[in-house]
Amino acid sequence: MYRMLDKIQTPEDVKKLNSEALIELAADVRAFLIESVSKTGGHLASNLGVVELTIALFYCLDLPRDGIVWDVGHQSYVHKLLTGRRAGFDTLRKLGGLSGFPKCSESVYDCFNTGHSSTAISAAFGMTKAAALKGEETRFVAVVGDGALTGGMAFEALNDAGTYQKNFIVVLNDNEMSIAKNVGGLSKYLTKLRTRPLYNSFKSGLERSIRHIPYIGENTVLGLKKVKDAVRHLLTSTTVFEDLGFTYLGPIDGHDLPFLCRVIQQAKKINGPVLIHAVTTKGKGYSFAEASPTHFHGIGAFEVETGMASQGYDSYATVMGKKLSMLAEGDETICAVTAAMPDGTGLRRFMEHYPERFFDVGIAEQHALTFSAGLSKQGLTPVVAIYSTFLQRAYDQVLHDVCLQKLRLVLCVDRAGVVGEDGETHQGLYDIAYLLHMPNMTLLAPANFSELEEMLSYAVKDHRGPIAIRYPRGNMQENYIGARPFVLGQSDWVCHGGMVCLMAAGHMLQTAMVVKKFLETSHITATVLNLRSLQPLDQDAIREAAKTHSVLVTIEDGIAHGGVGERIASLVHDMPVRVLIKAHRNGIVPQGTCSELYAKCGLDAKTITEEILDIINGEKQHEKT
Amino acid sequence: MYRMLDKIQTPEDVKKLNSEALIELAADVRAFLIESVSKTGGHLASNLGVVELTIALFYCLDLPRDGIVWDVGHQSYVHKLLTGRRAGFDTLRKLGGLSGFPKCSESVYDCFNTGHSSTAISAAFGMTKAAALKGEETRFVAVVGDGALTGGMAFEALNDAGTYQKNFIVVLNDNEMSIAKNVGGLSKYLTKLRTRPLYNSFKSGLERSIRHIPYIGENTVLGLKKVKDAVRHLLTSTTVFEDLGFTYLGPIDGHDLPFLCRVIQQAKKINGPVLIHAVTTKGKGYSFAEASPTHFHGIGAFEVETGMASQGYDSYATVMGKKLSMLAEGDETICAVTAAMPDGTGLRRFMEHYPERFFDVGIAEQHALTFSAGLSKQGLTPVVAIYSTFLQRAYDQVLHDVCLQKLRLVLCVDRAGVVGEDGETHQGLYDIAYLLHMPNMTLLAPANFSELEEMLSYAVKDHRGPIAIRYPRGNMQENYIGARPFVLGQSDWVCHGGMVCLMAAGHMLQTAMVVKKFLETSHITATVLNLRSLQPLDQDAIREAAKTHSVLVTIEDGIAHGGVGERIASLVHDMPVRVLIKAHRNGIVPQGTCSELYAKCGLDAKTITEEILDIINGEKQHEKT
Repeated sequence: MYRMLDKIQTPEDVKKLNSEALIELAADVRAFLIESVSKTGGHLASNLGVVELTIALFYCLDLPRDGIVWDVGHQSYVHKLLTGRRAGFDTLRKLGGLSGFPKCSESVYDCFNTGHSSTAISAAFGMTKAAALKGEETRFVAVVGDGALTGGMAFEALNDAGTYQKNFIVVLNDNEMSIAKNVGGLSKYLTKLRTRPLYNSFKSGLERSIRHIPYIGENTVLGLKKVKDAVRHLLTSTTVFEDLGFTYLGPIDGHDLPFLCRVIQQAKKINGPVLIHAVTTKGKGYSFAEASPTHFHGIGAFEVETGMASQGYDSYATVMGKKLSMLAEGDETICAVTAAMPDGTGLRRFMEHYPERFFDVGIAEQHALTFSAGLSKQGLTPVVAIYSTFLQRAYDQVLHDVCLQKLRLVLCVDRAGVVGEDGETHQGLYDIAYLLHMPNMTLLAPANFSELEEMLSYAVKDHRGPIAIRYPRGNMQENYIGARPFVLGQSDWVCHGGMVCLMAAGHMLQTAMVVKKFLETSHITATVLNLRSLQPLDQDAIREAAKTHSVLVTIEDGIAHGGVGERIASLVHDMPVRVLIKAHRNGIVPQGTCSELYAKCGLDAKTITEEILDIINGEKQHEKT
Repeated sequence: MYRMLDKIQTPEDVKKLNSEALIELAADVRAFLIESVSKTGGHLASNLGVVELTIALFYCLDLPRDGIVWDVGHQSYVHKLLTGRRAGFDTLRKLGGLSGFPKCSESVYDCFNTGHSSTAISAAFGMTKAAALKGEETRFVAVVGDGALTGGMAFEALNDAGTYQKNFIVVLNDNEMSIAKNVGGLSKYLTKLRTRPLYNSFKSGLERSIRHIPYIGENTVLGLKKVKDAVRHLLTSTTVFEDLGFTYLGPIDGHDLPFLCRVIQQAKKINGPVLIHAVTTKGKGYSFAEASPTHFHGIGAFEVETGMASQGYDSYATVMGKKLSMLAEGDETICAVTAAMPDGTGLRRFMEHYPERFFDVGIAEQHALTFSAGLSKQGLTPVVAIYSTFLQRAYDQVLHDVCLQKLRLVLCVDRAGVVGEDGETHQGLYDIAYLLHMPNMTLLAPANFSELEEMLSYAVKDHRGPIAIRYPRGNMQENYIGARPFVLGQSDWVCHGGMVCLMAAGHMLQTAMVVKKFLETSHITATVLNLRSLQPLDQDAIREAAKTHSVLVTIEDGIAHGGVGERIASLVHDMPVRVLIKAHRNGIVPQGTCSELYAKCGLDAKTITEEILDIINGEKQHEKT
């Protein structure tokens, strides 16, 4: 079916191909990806952009002795396809199936797991130093996007690697995008670099002192125009990368496969760190993806011929974005801040309506928080919308810059809890635990869209100090209506029952309601308490529940240790009540649909019901004896 | 006593002085600082380095309408001295006294609290944008050291601010040091910049397109040599800062007060972001501090005439460093990694003995962790020594890059618990809570030096997966000898008593032993359990203790929420035992001596004893009724 791709079992097979065959392979890979991802969904555009780059690296490196660290990692499909995992593409991002990210457990060709942005240079440099210490020839190449380069830790790594005395290659995959359009000074700068004459002669890496003088190779005849360009290149400036100690090779056309191979081969010969600046097109080769790379970044199944995917629906993120825009109309102090996620966080509407109060700071969660702390200090009301898993990057800034100073700042913690197909690196399991222990922090969890709106309104209008609202990815399954309006520190009694009290945090209320129904079939009526306010907790309601029930069941979509359930158990530890804490016991939750994952983690209604019945039956047994 | 300093009550007074008077003021300030800090101890060298810089900023800005954000903040003494806080210097860094860091609660002239590195540009830029949105003329200047600039978040902020269309000033205070000598490509690069001809003509900031052509001002007559320099400057390269969008003014002599004032005034007129590169000398004006800036970074009381301070003693850090060096002798896979703290973390000995296996990555905790993950992935045994409070910066890297991959990596979490005089931004209160909830993480707490050695030895020799050892700042008060050798997951029964069981985490064992003595005077014998292994906990011992005692008292030097005590309470919640959790209830612990702070936080033996007696008496009361 794919003439050239069919021949590839391992990277060794790639190395045997000639230029024409490599180009044919690229076409096959591209066709396969479009066909395959159209059925399963996945990260399409970024993978179409690195087809040639991946093949060139495979051609020039000796895998698996050498290794490639893919920053973020969602652009590793080509890598997977060429390392014997073609058959797995049917199961891409499914429970037990092929991961959408590099996974060492999946293949010997994956040398480091990635998921969050800007880690690859650090990891590859660490592995490079380790190999050197062990006297091994192994080579580890980091491939990093221009978006990921705005993440501070990438800079920390460049700074460290800049003084290395041996070969170390970083490939900058510059497509002018992260998920959305990139922002900031670096992005502007790279645009300037891209307009330089294309790199087409090899600088000698031997003499660093003369590295700015282009070497006119035997195979290169420079016309007068090119000499001028070269001289201008010489005169204008060195690059940021050279300033940090790297040899800069670029810009080069990241889709010119034979030339890519030549540049990488040359880079391998340079004593010292090298940055290859490859300019690529996100979505390359599939017109719909080239036209809308953001849309085709992470996409569900679609029709190849039309590029049409199934329609969207209201999600917690879009509800947040709409409500915030409404609130901002009446309050000029409200600002919105995102770290390169205007769409994912639902802020596009805000951005379009209030561009002067909208701040996209790039993939830079740390800066996002302290920048917002600055806004707050000057009397504005910053609302920072960020995914739970990425907020981990700003743990210290939330604590040190926001909480210690008790600044007024609203954190919209999106994708909190299980997120599904992106798997272990993207699950939002930790925010409850790490926000609960921060001083001055208030933490809310809405059980539905209208509670989210109420809480957001409270947060921007009335609250003083830092406040976080956590809500899940995607939509709401059932529209439960609260018994009373949201008040800070108060939970909501959804219904009153007998010996069991179910205490649910946020969206887990839906699960609690199903558990309640299941228990009824065993003739047990349950009380259901919607916690709403996780910090401060409604201690009165919890103590009341502990007095009037024999079993408390806490249900939260987060890690058990340091979570709400543990705190509730600690709160009532001197009262004669059993507490069943339902939360994630294992902090590593794989990929799959959310309902599959809840079941796997024992957080589905069926398992919870069974465990409650076990406790009740156990106690009855106990009473009899 | 200080002719010129005596005249200064507010920054307004500084603005009235002429050049000569300003210079005289600088001399007074310097003399005052040396005299004052020699009595109280404090951060001397960094403050001596910014005397002229501070005065120049005061002269050129309108404080407190304008604001200065001091990165890290330990160089804010001059600022404090000139803003009416001279009298407070007797109480510097003491409980209830003058803070060693900027504190908004202390003065209207402090506009943002700092403590951790690399936050100032983000904060100042946030405040600048807020002021602009509100239509105010207010100006916020960030002063950042060259060390802090290696922290990724500073780069994130430069990237964001680089595209700003209005004036925003960053002052780079370049003294070639953070606490230790700086490292990395940026440091090398700044050295190169420093050797450029001193900046002495003003570039027009109006036309960005011609900003590389020096403007020959009316007051400046350039000789032929200078023209050559200017042309060379023009031809060689733009700076990294210009590449990111900043106008670069520098390098300038950071001790030339009149010139500093002129440059700052000029910088204020530039439409867009400006970076002033001021070269300063850490310890300037005090020969002993200039000669040993690391020693005089943070120092105790000393003799002005000789620069001699009281002698050091063995600390947990030095014990760790010695032991690690010994272990490294027999195991070539052991590497040590620090983020710009070779001395503070006790690693200097290792660095000198095994330079090829020692990695100082700069102030870059994020990179330190993921780089070490790379070392680990390639079979080495990285030991990362880092202060508890600074490890907060690498929360995501520990979780995402180390724990999810279950990599073999040893975290030496130094300065865990109360640290004393540095105050709220530096207390190590959170590491237990944030490490406990990470998957695959093992957490140990030694109660004395020999346990630290045992645990370190276990960690590098036998353990698989990530492991953290937390220990406090400073020395050990009493050499308690354990009853049995350290075994993972096992606690140690120190002594067996009656109704009360004291469960101590790490160095709090000393407090537990005192509580035990105090209880004896009330005829209560207590059991003491040294927890040792905080994760995994010794559940058997804890359940055993819960069965055989009526009160469990957990004592830990960390935040209560998500800590060990809460977990123990949750573990025994269905057993008939009272649990008293002694930990930090308030996450904001001010400055003071450690014993003062323990008392303030209710973590001293006296308070704990009283609370235990209250419980026991309460229960007796209860029994009677």
